[in-house]
Amino acid sequence: MLARAKALGCDLRPHVKTSKTVQAALLQTGGRKSKIVVSTLAEAAFYADAGFDDILYAVPITMDKLGDASTLAQRLGSFHLLVDNAVTVANLQAAPGPGGSNGGGKWSVFVMVDCGYHRDGVDPSDPASVEMARKVANGNTTTLAGCYTHGGHSYENSTAADVKAVAATERDAVVLFSQKLKAAGVRCETVGVGSTPTCSVPPDHLNGVNEMHPGNYVYYDVMQRDIGACTSADIATRVLTRVIGHYPAQNMMLIDLGWTGCSAQGGEHGYGAFLETPSLTIKVLKQEAGEVSTVDGSKIDFTRFPIGTMLQLAPYHACAATHQHRVIHALAADHATIIDTWNICKGWGGSAEIPAPIPSARL
Amino acid sequence: MLARAKALGCDLRPHVKTSKTVQAALLQTGGRKSKIVVSTLAEAAFYADAGFDDILYAVPITMDKLGDASTLAQRLGSFHLLVDNAVTVANLQAAPGPGGSNGGGKWSVFVMVDCGYHRDGVDPSDPASVEMARKVANGNTTTLAGCYTHGGHSYENSTAADVKAVAATERDAVVLFSQKLKAAGVRCETVGVGSTPTCSVPPDHLNGVNEMHPGNYVYYDVMQRDIGACTSADIATRVLTRVIGHYPAQNMMLIDLGWTGCSAQGGEHGYGAFLETPSLTIKVLKQEAGEVSTVDGSKIDFTRFPIGTMLQLAPYHACAATHQHRVIHALAADHATIIDTWNICKGWGGSAEIPAPIPSARL
Repeated sequence: MLARAKALGCDLRPHVKTSKTVQAALLQTGGRKSKIVVSTLAEAAFYADAGFDDILYAVPITMDKLGDASTLAQRLGSFHLLVDNAVTVANLQAAPGPGGSNGGGKWSVFVMVDCGYHRDGVDPSDPASVEMARKVANGNTTTLAGCYTHGGHSYENSTAADVKAVAATERDAVVLFSQKLKAAGVRCETVGVGSTPTCSVPPDHLNGVNEMHPGNYVYYDVMQRDIGACTSADIATRVLTRVIGHYPAQNMMLIDLGWTGCSAQGGEHGYGAFLETPSLTIKVLKQEAGEVSTVDGSKIDFTRFPIGTMLQLAPYHACAATHQHRVIHALAADHATIIDTWNICKGWGGSAEIPAPIPSARL
Repeated sequence: MLARAKALGCDLRPHVKTSKTVQAALLQTGGRKSKIVVSTLAEAAFYADAGFDDILYAVPITMDKLGDASTLAQRLGSFHLLVDNAVTVANLQAAPGPGGSNGGGKWSVFVMVDCGYHRDGVDPSDPASVEMARKVANGNTTTLAGCYTHGGHSYENSTAADVKAVAATERDAVVLFSQKLKAAGVRCETVGVGSTPTCSVPPDHLNGVNEMHPGNYVYYDVMQRDIGACTSADIATRVLTRVIGHYPAQNMMLIDLGWTGCSAQGGEHGYGAFLETPSLTIKVLKQEAGEVSTVDGSKIDFTRFPIGTMLQLAPYHACAATHQHRVIHALAADHATIIDTWNICKGWGGSAEIPAPIPSARL
């Protein structure tokens, strides 16, 4: 992904939410301890603790998180917030700056642009969006660091060609917005695109874009394979489990893997794939047990899978499977020797995690 | 549940896998530090550390876990294994006993009985099942502690009447098996039934049964409500989240809750219910963000939910939502004051968690 970004004229600002580990993030950055995207304030603090800088918290900021954000802004050379709402911008500008050395006591802010995913982000063709960005750029306590988009609708596709088409709309939306900003005299240094599908099957050019921020690609998974973003050989993680029961009458084997170990995502796709034993699939998954049968409904050859046999599940969704664990064991090329164990950042962090007392939300 | 079990002539041996906390387990047992069911060896060690005894690990045992099981058997007055396979019984009897004082150096073993759920368990009407139990009872290193069943197919129902019918078949299966054991001269002290639905809507009698082992009821959830096992007022847990974005064009609000905070289970049911703001529902849930709209498709009154408003999600599946967290905050009756914070047991424990080196499973 580093080489692809370079070839497309972009810096890679990888999203680290999939692994939430220092070691995998360093693989993503090529060893550079800077320029990453995080999905929680806990991740921001975790990577700051590990010496990372230039961290973008790419979830719309709200005032309740400003205390934690201020701490991070003061610790780091650059810590960036994300906004997509004029009310939040006004609230942010009514609050004190982050203090410390960050941007001369100003919040460094990215504007989220909606490129058709319709989750978050401003409409790039709406003049009010430009006006909001201008307010950020001209604020006493804010500076405009860039615009950011995420083509999350690329996940709704089933072919690489369809993903590539989404990638073009992702680029076009954010470039359109940056051009409108330029025409309005609003300086916007960074123009970023990114989802793992659209960065894996990028458009022919990314003219006007200077950052890519995919994340899942660090491990890839069966979901990404199924939409054409990678091949089975690219899927890096496995969850290990053992056969713990034989039930010939039901043509089923029990395994000691439940959704605690890989999440329940992708159930209709077998919760992932047993790439090393592809005749098998998970039919049912409970808390600490799963029911395995054959993909094609043929009889299981139980003699091939004695009780105690270890199976390896390539997860359907690596982000979700990883989140169920505290550590990742990194293997040597023999796929058997553990050469390192990586701690996974847990929780959400700071005041976001433990509000006390709980405000009443009965409305 | 304690009162219901007593009225039905049973001891309550609660399953603690839903909360995985000491404090909730003590609510389940009425303060007694004994007679519980666990779903992992990590839970067994966690509760042993807290002074609990008489712990049943209710997942079919395999040889790879015997070292950890031996440690637990030696620490505890009684630690029980579960079996449903003659090969495992033979392997267990070929291995050393647990040592220590547990059952005179014997493994204390429950036999899992299939009552129609068809996940695990032996067929109670099959003479081979009785023969297996007899071998357990007569082993040099094993004793038969009881038989155990789980009417997990109660979750496939949508009315309390249907659940009650499953509860009767759950009882009948395990009582049939215990009668066959008695007829064969095999002593079996404990006869247990249990799932939260079947114990919440029990049959008219549990004659022949002397233990109930439900678990989820400690919190209940939207899934249990929807199958008639509880009411909304019985649902004890909430996951808190804040409104972080307003998108009138999509009639949508963004929240800072993703499947990291409540799991992705129950998506087709809104991932749970906003019981305090029932007009709202989650339409889409990503890693750290969710899209909220109205249940009936009507326009959101955004003025009622300013950015920063806290919402409370009653989870679809409490076991899955709880598992995403490290602690539970226990609230006073005002539903606002945190009066205690309960640690949640994490991981799987011992050799089950870190096999090194990883055996090849390429078959």
